[in-house]
Amino acid sequence: MEISFKPIGFFRTAETRIPRHWSVSDALGRIEIDPVFVEGLKDIRRQDRIIVLFNFHKSSPFTPGHILQTPPHKTIPMGVFSICSPVRPNPIGLSVLTVKDIRENIIEVEHIDMLDKTPVLDIKPYIPPA
Amino acid sequence: MEISFKPIGFFRTAETRIPRHWSVSDALGRIEIDPVFVEGLKDIRRQDRIIVLFNFHKSSPFTPGHILQTPPHKTIPMGVFSICSPVRPNPIGLSVLTVKDIRENIIEVEHIDMLDKTPVLDIKPYIPPA
Repeated sequence: MEISFKPIGFFRTAETRIPRHWSVSDALGRIEIDPVFVEGLKDIRRQDRIIVLFNFHKSSPFTPGHILQTPPHKTIPMGVFSICSPVRPNPIGLSVLTVKDIRENIIEVEHIDMLDKTPVLDIKPYIPPA
Repeated sequence: MEISFKPIGFFRTAETRIPRHWSVSDALGRIEIDPVFVEGLKDIRRQDRIIVLFNFHKSSPFTPGHILQTPPHKTIPMGVFSICSPVRPNPIGLSVLTVKDIRENIIEVEHIDMLDKTPVLDIKPYIPPA
């Protein structure tokens, strides 16, 4: 059973040293959304937090040896579903970013932790748990 | 450009009336993970919050008419990237669930908002924004 998606756009950034996690990143970049979806961005505002789902397009293929991985700054291997490694059974990334500006199909964002040209799969509103 | 994923498991629930969002749900269910990944669950504990990514496998195909949608209890059409509709360019769902129990490859969870047999794509640790 395969489930296929097409990117709705791509990340662009001049950063070459990308932090390993959005929660510790102050790096800037932008999301260039396919213009066919531009109307779908009309309710996104400056300073909104957005959830961005993307494809870890440069990560190594997942193998059984990746079910446990030792994260940076840890000493004990952890289960892949408890860590944020880009090497996952399905290489989908999730970052919570802050919108710095938005015009037409371009969203300027802060806290990025993804590489230039990363394919973007979805944008969702950020909703904190109860 | 197509990006393909395979489910790591499936949701199961006896609920037939599923709330429209995890943030207002007290419904229970379980995630049955493919046993090949069972070691990857070893660091998930009772009462943990987990992020679950899944495929809206029963949603209607996305068309240009879905770029703006009027959510339940709203009166004005909103951009698809600011709402949680299952009808999206890439039908990926995201829920923050609470682990009630875990044994072997079965995770019992609370706050579900997905249908029985929903394909699960990924599980990630819940990390609140700074």
